[in-house]
Amino acid sequence: MTQPSLQQLEQHDAFIHRHIGPDEAQVKEMLEALGVASLDELIEKTVPASIRKTDALDLEDAINEEEALAELRGLAKRNKIYRTFIGMGYHDTVTPNVILRNVLENPGWYTAYTPYQPEIAQGRLEGLLNFQQMIMDLTGMELANASMLDEGTAAAEAMAMCKRQAKRNKSNVFFVDADCHPQTIAVVKTRAEHFGFEVVVGDVEKDIPAELFGALFQYPGSTGVVRDLTDLIAKVHEANGLVTVAADLMSLVSLKAPGEMGADVVVGCNQRFGIPMGYGGPHAGFFAFREAYKRAAPGRIIGVSVDSKGNRALRMAMQTREQHIRREKANSNICTSQVLLAVMSAFYAVYHGPQGLKTIGARIQRLADILAAGLKKQGFDLTHDTWFDTLTVVAGDQRDAIYQRALDAEINLRKVGEDKLGISLHETASLDDVSDILKAFTDGDHGLDLRAMDSEIAAKGPQGVPASLVRSSEFLTHPVFNTYHSETEMLRYLKTLESKDIALNHSMIPLGSCTMKLNATAEMIPVTWPEFGKLHPFAPANQAEGYAEMFKQLQQMLAACTGYDAVSLQPNAGSQGEYAGLVAIKKYLEAKGEGQRDICLIPASAHGTNPASAMMVSMKVVVVACDDKGNVDMADLKAKVEEHGDRIAALMVTYPSTHGVFEEGIRDICDLIHQAGGQVYIDGANMNALIGVAAPGKFGGDVSHLNLHKTFCIPHGGGGPGMGPIAVGEHLKPYLAGHPVTEVPETDPANGTISAAPWGSASILPISWMYIRMMGKTGMKQATEMAILNANYMAKRLSEHYSLLYTGTNGFIAHECLVDLRPLKETSGISEEDIAKRLMDFGFHAPTMSFPVAGTLMIEPTESESKEELDRFVEAMAIIRKEVEDVANGVYSADDNPLHNAPHTLEDVMADQWPHNYSRDVAARPAAWLKAHKVWPASNRIDNVFGDRNLICSCPPVESYMD
Amino acid sequence: MTQPSLQQLEQHDAFIHRHIGPDEAQVKEMLEALGVASLDELIEKTVPASIRKTDALDLEDAINEEEALAELRGLAKRNKIYRTFIGMGYHDTVTPNVILRNVLENPGWYTAYTPYQPEIAQGRLEGLLNFQQMIMDLTGMELANASMLDEGTAAAEAMAMCKRQAKRNKSNVFFVDADCHPQTIAVVKTRAEHFGFEVVVGDVEKDIPAELFGALFQYPGSTGVVRDLTDLIAKVHEANGLVTVAADLMSLVSLKAPGEMGADVVVGCNQRFGIPMGYGGPHAGFFAFREAYKRAAPGRIIGVSVDSKGNRALRMAMQTREQHIRREKANSNICTSQVLLAVMSAFYAVYHGPQGLKTIGARIQRLADILAAGLKKQGFDLTHDTWFDTLTVVAGDQRDAIYQRALDAEINLRKVGEDKLGISLHETASLDDVSDILKAFTDGDHGLDLRAMDSEIAAKGPQGVPASLVRSSEFLTHPVFNTYHSETEMLRYLKTLESKDIALNHSMIPLGSCTMKLNATAEMIPVTWPEFGKLHPFAPANQAEGYAEMFKQLQQMLAACTGYDAVSLQPNAGSQGEYAGLVAIKKYLEAKGEGQRDICLIPASAHGTNPASAMMVSMKVVVVACDDKGNVDMADLKAKVEEHGDRIAALMVTYPSTHGVFEEGIRDICDLIHQAGGQVYIDGANMNALIGVAAPGKFGGDVSHLNLHKTFCIPHGGGGPGMGPIAVGEHLKPYLAGHPVTEVPETDPANGTISAAPWGSASILPISWMYIRMMGKTGMKQATEMAILNANYMAKRLSEHYSLLYTGTNGFIAHECLVDLRPLKETSGISEEDIAKRLMDFGFHAPTMSFPVAGTLMIEPTESESKEELDRFVEAMAIIRKEVEDVANGVYSADDNPLHNAPHTLEDVMADQWPHNYSRDVAARPAAWLKAHKVWPASNRIDNVFGDRNLICSCPPVESYMD
Repeated sequence: MTQPSLQQLEQHDAFIHRHIGPDEAQVKEMLEALGVASLDELIEKTVPASIRKTDALDLEDAINEEEALAELRGLAKRNKIYRTFIGMGYHDTVTPNVILRNVLENPGWYTAYTPYQPEIAQGRLEGLLNFQQMIMDLTGMELANASMLDEGTAAAEAMAMCKRQAKRNKSNVFFVDADCHPQTIAVVKTRAEHFGFEVVVGDVEKDIPAELFGALFQYPGSTGVVRDLTDLIAKVHEANGLVTVAADLMSLVSLKAPGEMGADVVVGCNQRFGIPMGYGGPHAGFFAFREAYKRAAPGRIIGVSVDSKGNRALRMAMQTREQHIRREKANSNICTSQVLLAVMSAFYAVYHGPQGLKTIGARIQRLADILAAGLKKQGFDLTHDTWFDTLTVVAGDQRDAIYQRALDAEINLRKVGEDKLGISLHETASLDDVSDILKAFTDGDHGLDLRAMDSEIAAKGPQGVPASLVRSSEFLTHPVFNTYHSETEMLRYLKTLESKDIALNHSMIPLGSCTMKLNATAEMIPVTWPEFGKLHPFAPANQAEGYAEMFKQLQQMLAACTGYDAVSLQPNAGSQGEYAGLVAIKKYLEAKGEGQRDICLIPASAHGTNPASAMMVSMKVVVVACDDKGNVDMADLKAKVEEHGDRIAALMVTYPSTHGVFEEGIRDICDLIHQAGGQVYIDGANMNALIGVAAPGKFGGDVSHLNLHKTFCIPHGGGGPGMGPIAVGEHLKPYLAGHPVTEVPETDPANGTISAAPWGSASILPISWMYIRMMGKTGMKQATEMAILNANYMAKRLSEHYSLLYTGTNGFIAHECLVDLRPLKETSGISEEDIAKRLMDFGFHAPTMSFPVAGTLMIEPTESESKEELDRFVEAMAIIRKEVEDVANGVYSADDNPLHNAPHTLEDVMADQWPHNYSRDVAARPAAWLKAHKVWPASNRIDNVFGDRNLICSCPPVESYMD
Repeated sequence: MTQPSLQQLEQHDAFIHRHIGPDEAQVKEMLEALGVASLDELIEKTVPASIRKTDALDLEDAINEEEALAELRGLAKRNKIYRTFIGMGYHDTVTPNVILRNVLENPGWYTAYTPYQPEIAQGRLEGLLNFQQMIMDLTGMELANASMLDEGTAAAEAMAMCKRQAKRNKSNVFFVDADCHPQTIAVVKTRAEHFGFEVVVGDVEKDIPAELFGALFQYPGSTGVVRDLTDLIAKVHEANGLVTVAADLMSLVSLKAPGEMGADVVVGCNQRFGIPMGYGGPHAGFFAFREAYKRAAPGRIIGVSVDSKGNRALRMAMQTREQHIRREKANSNICTSQVLLAVMSAFYAVYHGPQGLKTIGARIQRLADILAAGLKKQGFDLTHDTWFDTLTVVAGDQRDAIYQRALDAEINLRKVGEDKLGISLHETASLDDVSDILKAFTDGDHGLDLRAMDSEIAAKGPQGVPASLVRSSEFLTHPVFNTYHSETEMLRYLKTLESKDIALNHSMIPLGSCTMKLNATAEMIPVTWPEFGKLHPFAPANQAEGYAEMFKQLQQMLAACTGYDAVSLQPNAGSQGEYAGLVAIKKYLEAKGEGQRDICLIPASAHGTNPASAMMVSMKVVVVACDDKGNVDMADLKAKVEEHGDRIAALMVTYPSTHGVFEEGIRDICDLIHQAGGQVYIDGANMNALIGVAAPGKFGGDVSHLNLHKTFCIPHGGGGPGMGPIAVGEHLKPYLAGHPVTEVPETDPANGTISAAPWGSASILPISWMYIRMMGKTGMKQATEMAILNANYMAKRLSEHYSLLYTGTNGFIAHECLVDLRPLKETSGISEEDIAKRLMDFGFHAPTMSFPVAGTLMIEPTESESKEELDRFVEAMAIIRKEVEDVANGVYSADDNPLHNAPHTLEDVMADQWPHNYSRDVAARPAAWLKAHKVWPASNRIDNVFGDRNLICSCPPVESYMD
């Protein structure tokens, strides 16, 4: 008998079988259950022939985990790690090892979903509450949200909020301190342009206009100056404007807080609190503000509420989400926050405590003081006589020579203007670094005794910070920041929090539209390689050749997967991608002389982010109706096209639809818009169901954003980070956003800037690169087919118990299904929320609730779930169905039944008296597999109304721990 | 006010404060509770002046985590990773990433303790049961133990067991196949020498003696031959001898199992099942045997039993442990097994499944077949016409040139004899490697079409394995090996197991004598650096310069910590260290012409390993009595010295004593032995209480072993690996064991070989290096002081509730305390086991039970535990004390009380009817902190008697899963 060939034995495609849940035998069973003979037949019956892709994906063949890691390692080695003192908002830092390994490298944290189901998310909610408290304390503000995408977009959001809040102020002018970081200025200007605001960039001492709705100051300035902002803020307030201060978090441990100077909003970035620079991200932007703005603030806020038993419990007090976002009335289109990074920085503060942070800050400051003294002794002038960690040195005609000598010593400095150099010191800087910098300035030995200079400075006190700006207020006084300072205690604190949450390492998270698939270890490993982590985003290009090549390859891969011609990697969230796509469309239309096109058609079924994004580019949203099958109502679409004619800028449509169906008419829809002169934006939220079987760039799309954190395996990180690159057709390529500091190939900064960093969250892009590389040509298609098979199998099995909404022409769905609970609610009073919470008792995270249709659950199993797990979920749903029946039949009363009381906690079952008409086991272990492994919800059902009425978004007071 | 200096701000000693639990304020409180003014005073009152160290440790100053990692990274970079085909029992392999990150790099697995408390260890017990099943299946044997230290020592243990089992056989001869791995032969010969056996090494075809008690064959042979052993085994059986086969695990997926040929014992190593080579270890040796030998087998065996409710539960069926070991009647001195490595390899088999393993095996075999064909085509002869993965090539006078050309291509081959080269292919070998090897042989392009050759071979079938030796029997048919093949399923399986176990990431594990201190992340990170992991132990020395330097530095550090003059890093467990120390003493005495000294004095309080080790070097154990304070009875010692005079070889004594006290007379004891001409072996088990305050090498010790996995922060790994280097005085240095393959500096192979690898478990030595480097001169001493403070504080607080045994002259203890439960048992009937199990309900792992005194608990908090954790433990013990009282008072009945019923499971509290006279909360959450975080024991109390009577050591049959 012939043996397999070596080629077969080599198993280069081994990863495909690790990524996909069901094995061959199970696939056969599932196909049988669906009554189709093969995967091919299923796809033929599911994906409309008019768009079905028949040729292979233009990707390489799969390689296995080791091969892919070796290949990526080769790219990573082409990045060079220099000592970098560029500053501009990015600083080298130390991620405490206990946090690195037990949070950033731990699937218990990184595979968790956004905490919409707070009862099984109390761990990361506490982490986020710590983050808010830390930001409030350091900025001196009343409230803070649970994070933004980066400092640039946080500042832009602040501008928009200032405009909304400064209601009686009719001015359209926003003043921006010229000493803000240039990327912040660029992002703010881009946003302002599309909102229709006028931005004045100037010197804070003389250029603040008399009439303005707001101003943005940088503290300390990008070039280092530490200025008392009190009077400047007062001046803007006098003009009825509001002031945003972009502040450096580390400096705030040493400096007077912006809140103490009257700031209305304080924004910034948490990066230097233990988050690797990662060539630009991901990091967490922060956003602190006056309590008065709490309903107007963008992003998520974590609040303290109570559960149904009156016990304290945390929740998202202010939710934003694609489904919840207030559509065209939204404050912002932001959905994602940067949970994983936000909690990491909060843990950094928990681990160091206030005293530890003060020491780190004081060390940085001391190094800057020594460097300043050294430079002065060598005869160099500084542009400012105040500083925290950043000096700007007048180098005159020696500038480029000094810069080059520093480079030769593998040191990066910042070029400022024509004749100056900027130097920012940071947590990992040492006296040796200071000495080497001085050597670059003096071209040889500087002859200074730096330790002796240190003694002098220690005796005199801080040199760069005016006495009036030395921080006197306390911060981080809460016990959580003063308890876990040994590694053992910290490790256990992290473990305790982790154990409260359900993540993918426990069970399926079948969220429709959110695609919670495997985040493979091999994909995650490169994220924490120093070659990717320790690069400053503005490092010279020849130090980042590995990144550049990886970007290029990833762009090609994503273009191949979507059928488009070019890809921009800058948008660092799906919402940012939508925004970037609409900006490109707008620029394109303007260039064509069709700037009058200002209407964006959006089907009623769209994600709420779509209209919110359209609003942000000042497009008028016109809603297109859907028919009773959930498809775009062609008659209505035609009528709207007719009505708005040459005002139509774009149609935004999700494909397959948010109803989980491949609409047959998609090509016709696209054609119709193109005939009207508009552009088609195909929302890539459901790209998981398309790759390899249909390409939006080929069936009518002009632009799509891609949720790399969904389809392309970047984990959800407990609610972020994500990545939202856009793919565009050739004609839109000239309009892709650029960057003001670092040249992004084939883009133009004149098109605007979307994110603070040139390639968004660069350091997590290796995850998607690894995924595509390991799946290859056939695997990427197979993933899509299996996502569709898993969804259809689950739909079929669920249909024995529930009515489903929406299917395609042949009775099949795409990659997710909608379970209609409205009929059950009518007969039993049991709501979709009751069922969602009841699923927690089974150890499952609830599917998406009431989107896109109220009273439904949207379930997306993804290709990574095994048949066993799907069957377990169906079993849970079947048991629940029986319970609903029992409520309808009166076996259970309406207000005492396992659904109404769900989720059940350990506290419940421990009670001496059991007051219910069903057993403890029915309450908490209603299925057999729970006897082997039970995960407890940490709270009973959380009271949202109480939380909204009593908004508390800081750590509970110490006294509350006494009882 | 003067600011701190930069030096202070730099915090080079930051790690000390992360390692040590209590902060300054807490230390003050604790000292006050003890009525001493300072740590110095405590040490003065605790450590006898006669031995107290007054000068500083000869170590460098502390450096922080980043600095130490950078320094070690510098050393690591000096190791060179070549493609290595040396074989000899070590092969490159792929650790599946999901196992790497979620087991090897996960404190939930690596900080767990040995599963002596099975109710909170079911996760790793299942992992170990899988390991046993895997070994049984692959070797074709009836039973397997839960792992040995390495292949060499496993073979030596097998020899000893064969001698014990072959009872009617009076021969003293053990035959060893000359084609065994040379390190195995060396270890076996060393053991045989000291047991007094005669080893005959020879050709299996002609040299097997007529009379022998056993034989060891290698399968396949070290040089590659695959031989049917059936007739050879029968021949030994005819002589009433027993046969051990040392087998290669990977080959067994393709080859007929040794059990099917009649082997009595099969040993080997699990390394190539996903464990990095690590320059020699740690790996898990395996040991499979006939059921008839189950009471005679060395090491641990995991068995299936039931708990008190009749539910299936796992446990250690055959325990070995320093305390349980049968002293001088022991079969072996082995205590540690290699749990972490054993479970990793079992998970490797779980993840790949039988089909995946067959594919890996077939690929290796195919590459060997192609290489063999290629070599033959180039005119080279092979020494054997059978092979699995290893070829030995007759290279004649070209041998060294070929070897060098391979080296130039960064390829390591094995030199065999004078004119031959060995090549072993493995999991990570590729066709490119085969091609490059052929190029080295042909000195340039080989001109062969290897893919075409592959097709030919695929058509013909395997070339190196005779048809009669092709494996036909199935293996790994159990469901556990056929279920978790997608990464998602595997991840969840690992998580489910992990969540059943208590490890240091949950709570204190206060095991007396076992020193469960922090295993810091920074210490663990280097273990999985490829520069440490991917080195073959027999790679040329110039590829391992980083290791060499690290060894040298670690040896200096350990010498400084102990006051000795030289250190051998070879012994890979504490027991091996004892053995190595006694071997050195024996060699030394022999060299002095005092070979008649054959008595080892051992105090009654000693760890059971001590007499077991003495037995292994054929010393006669004479027990020295202890007085009622637990100290060595000087009168008895003097009498014994008097009595045995010049037959005294050594005294083995633990210091501070196993009673947790610094005996005042230690110097006198040592002097007495020296005067009698004996050597003093100071057992380093309690070195945790000595470093920096007293040095055994200075107060009378001639040799000590060091448990790096206790005092020096190598984690316990759920029961292994450990490391047991020995430190010796100058006079013993010439007698340190060497290695037959790799030269170990300053040692002589003629002294024997202790472990299979030259530096034992080399790849975990960076853990101890990091620890000592980060603690530095002051930190190492401070750790000792704080261990003593924590122990004394806990003793003081516990003394309010319990009577304590043994204190020093001033009423203080050393680093651990003994709680005497005998009085309570008398009045209440509550046993130490009841209390140990009850502690699980509080989330604590029990302290050491009934060692060194029956009816006691020995508690060692270590310096890493915070005061909060100590207070929690004391609170738990106080609540328990009250419960005991209530049993004594009749509030609770003797057979229904929280102690008798402990531990309580989730199953218990979920019952509809609660039959007890105390509440569910008292049962399972008896202290307030448990409301915030509860870890459930996975089983009720396990029935050891049932397990012993019904010994089942394999995975339960499939049918048992049906109910």
